Amino acid sequence: MIENSQENQNLISANRILARENVVDAFGHVSIRNSENSERYIMSRSRSPELVEFSDLLEFSLEGVALDAKGQAMYGERMIHGAIYEARPEVNAVVHNHSLAVLPFCLTKTALKPAIHVAAVIGQEIPIWDIRDHFGDTDMLVRTMEQGRKMTAAMGSNNCLLMRGHGAVVAGRNVKEAVMTAVYLQVNATVQTEAMKMGDPVYLSAGEIELLTEVQFSDLAMDRAWEYFCVRAGVESM
Amino acid sequence: MIENSQENQNLISANRILARENVVDAFGHVSIRNSENSERYIMSRSRSPELVEFSDLLEFSLEGVALDAKGQAMYGERMIHGAIYEARPEVNAVVHNHSLAVLPFCLTKTALKPAIHVAAVIGQEIPIWDIRDHFGDTDMLVRTMEQGRKMTAAMGSNNCLLMRGHGAVVAGRNVKEAVMTAVYLQVNATVQTEAMKMGDPVYLSAGEIELLTEVQFSDLAMDRAWEYFCVRAGVESM
Amino acid sequence: MIENSQENQNLISANRILARENVVDAFGHVSIRNSENSERYIMSRSRSPELVEFSDLLEFSLEGVALDAKGQAMYGERMIHGAIYEARPEVNAVVHNHSLAVLPFCLTKTALKPAIHVAAVIGQEIPIWDIRDHFGDTDMLVRTMEQGRKMTAAMGSNNCLLMRGHGAVVAGRNVKEAVMTAVYLQVNATVQTEAMKMGDPVYLSAGEIELLTEVQFSDLAMDRAWEYFCVRAGVESM
Amino acid sequence: MIENSQENQNLISANRILARENVVDAFGHVSIRNSENSERYIMSRSRSPELVEFSDLLEFSLEGVALDAKGQAMYGERMIHGAIYEARPEVNAVVHNHSLAVLPFCLTKTALKPAIHVAAVIGQEIPIWDIRDHFGDTDMLVRTMEQGRKMTAAMGSNNCLLMRGHGAVVAGRNVKEAVMTAVYLQVNATVQTEAMKMGDPVYLSAGEIELLTEVQFSDLAMDRAWEYFCVRAGVESM
Repeated sequence: MIENSQENQNLISANRILARENVVDAFGHVSIRNSENSERYIMSRSRSPELVEFSDLLEFSLEGVALDAKGQAMYGERMIHGAIYEARPEVNAVVHNHSLAVLPFCLTKTALKPAIHVAAVIGQEIPIWDIRDHFGDTDMLVRTMEQGRKMTAAMGSNNCLLMRGHGAVVAGRNVKEAVMTAVYLQVNATVQTEAMKMGDPVYLSAGEIELLTEVQFSDLAMDRAWEYFCVRAGVESM
Repeated sequence: MIENSQENQNLISANRILARENVVDAFGHVSIRNSENSERYIMSRSRSPELVEFSDLLEFSLEGVALDAKGQAMYGERMIHGAIYEARPEVNAVVHNHSLAVLPFCLTKTALKPAIHVAAVIGQEIPIWDIRDHFGDTDMLVRTMEQGRKMTAAMGSNNCLLMRGHGAVVAGRNVKEAVMTAVYLQVNATVQTEAMKMGDPVYLSAGEIELLTEVQFSDLAMDRAWEYFCVRAGVESM
Repeated sequence: MIENSQENQNLISANRILARENVVDAFGHVSIRNSENSERYIMSRSRSPELVEFSDLLEFSLEGVALDAKGQAMYGERMIHGAIYEARPEVNAVVHNHSLAVLPFCLTKTALKPAIHVAAVIGQEIPIWDIRDHFGDTDMLVRTMEQGRKMTAAMGSNNCLLMRGHGAVVAGRNVKEAVMTAVYLQVNATVQTEAMKMGDPVYLSAGEIELLTEVQFSDLAMDRAWEYFCVRAGVESM
Repeated sequence: MIENSQENQNLISANRILARENVVDAFGHVSIRNSENSERYIMSRSRSPELVEFSDLLEFSLEGVALDAKGQAMYGERMIHGAIYEARPEVNAVVHNHSLAVLPFCLTKTALKPAIHVAAVIGQEIPIWDIRDHFGDTDMLVRTMEQGRKMTAAMGSNNCLLMRGHGAVVAGRNVKEAVMTAVYLQVNATVQTEAMKMGDPVYLSAGEIELLTEVQFSDLAMDRAWEYFCVRAGVESM
């Protein structure tokens, strides 16, 4: 049974926020690791994030087996989440999305890099991973743990990964950090796209990224942003 | 008389969804083949899709003659629909639109091609048809069965066709598939437009398109998307 | 006194529609010629179009003198309207706006030309006029009849004029035509802007423009569009 | 104690307007100088502008010390405001924002310059300041008076300043002027960005800028714009 905890309520909020900010549309999903059992994660049944409610939450083993599927359909790409939780103990929340602003960077060799200070949290390196390199022609979905593990290996210890022709994966220490990172990945992509047309953008330095990441993940910045995101998404801020 | 069936209710939903997702504006239309009589199709009287109600539905012969026009004005371009139903028995729904994201591809030689996995359903080839090539200077509307048949011939067995300086035609096996294809045609156009400015985009392979089309038209993906589209459009999901 | 006629109600609707469709923002205005007295025109007091109500309407001589200003401030640029009504008896409605999509064409030599069929009504030629050429450094506003007449001369018999660094002027035979032309001027600008980045767009031919203008100004198209615009703007459609 | 004056109510309105017009998002802030004590300024506690209420207002010394912090968190970058008030007696309102349209100009050498008449108020010169030039790798936030003073020196007597990789600072003689300047800085950036892709834009001349600034800051223009902004933001217009 899924507990009615603040963590799980925040997961509902995360779904709604990502929809409100246009990071996800009909597709995309967000999960959290179960804080009581690090070998489990919690995620909605197969439903668009904008519509997810508490009763939609399911619990999964890291291999993607639902403890009780309640007869519901499950996201086909839940292995993205389990593979990351398996490999990275510091990660407790994962977002997968097809943001329209990010997608152009998934089709070309152009590197998406932090250029604006609020987006430092996306990290200095954002690798691109192409499922075709390992598995040839597929339906491009990360459907097996083998695929998820290859993807996770390409992601390394970075906060973000781009998937060729597909979208982004974002990992965070908690769900608020993962949401903020996913939102500002999109914002940075929007700004960088236009700046590149004007000339060679100046990107953040390694030192700036490090110092700013701490600032953007501080309570001062996070509380302000989370309240704002919640109000806009029509959910209670906690 | 138009039956109050789920199919016809879905046609109303399709109208509202296409408006909500900005695929159509004041103009554009969507039809379904009558499942009881394959020589008939159902479509609104001349009205903007955002406003279409059940009482606006009319039934047409494939040649575009209304069985009972109820004294209402009819879409001038209904021959687009009839000509496709006539030639393609597998098609049971047609959308015609002037999506702002798609239109730039209707003005130049730049090919619109599936680049992102959710848009595989638009198909590997999207021909462009220019009414001027066959009929010289016209008002560019597909007003006669002769024009509709020329257009249908250019479309071949593809899911989508672009019309020079005009818009897009989308065909589906059912109205949900046609709506999803029309929405992601627009999404793909948006993403491809920006990606092309960054370099040469990697497009989906023929194998990926085939495998993904099956996935995107599966119940798992379609149910999720249809519920999402309906909620956003303020119509009941069925 | 301003009559509570359908024409004047349509002028209110026109204000709200142009705001809803983002053709105008805080600034911009729309007027109609008084159908009872061709030497008079009707326009709001100085107020943003989104907020205009019946009680805001004032009547002006063609020289821009209010018959009864009711102690209200007036638009500084009303001479745009009077000068056009003075020179062009076929014009009964004028829109002035600063549409963000149109403005880039007001800063460069790039010609804005009808490329999509719904926008044929903008006309084959859209001149650019620069107040600086005649009057040197000014506040760029058309404040005097002398300025308005120079502008009108540059406009010739065209439906649209662009003003360098400033915006657009649209003339119509009635307020519905003027609104539709202003909306699709913006739509065409949006599409043409992106198409030009892909290559050389194919524009509508002179014959297409002529045939399509008739179609787009027909009752069939106009009634559909006007109902749609009114519903979106939250005003009654008449 | 913060007085319930019209000035302070306008500061609340300014917060909401800047959010409604997408000039600020979760981050960004606006302040006014206390008209009763020029050595004090008033600004919200650390909260997103969209959510700011009267009870959130705090009063600060020019050095950024809260007279009574009410136990609340404060904006980390309040030194931006104090440093400007300290150096420029004519300035009574300051906006700091990360507008997405403006940010590309903060990443490249491309000058943002007034090109459209409503944006003349942004001023003839908009310097870019890079905190890295003076302070090396930092978290990029203006946290100390020393940093604020360096920034203010770079701004000179201009209305706007761009901060590399960060955003914009706007100063006004009163809060309405500061809001209008911040909004049209964003509008000008949007238009200039597209115009530059078409060719070399014609910018406003020095004479036009001077004459237009007076016009745009006149009661006629300001009253119209302020009413419009307030209605859209859902606040009372005063």
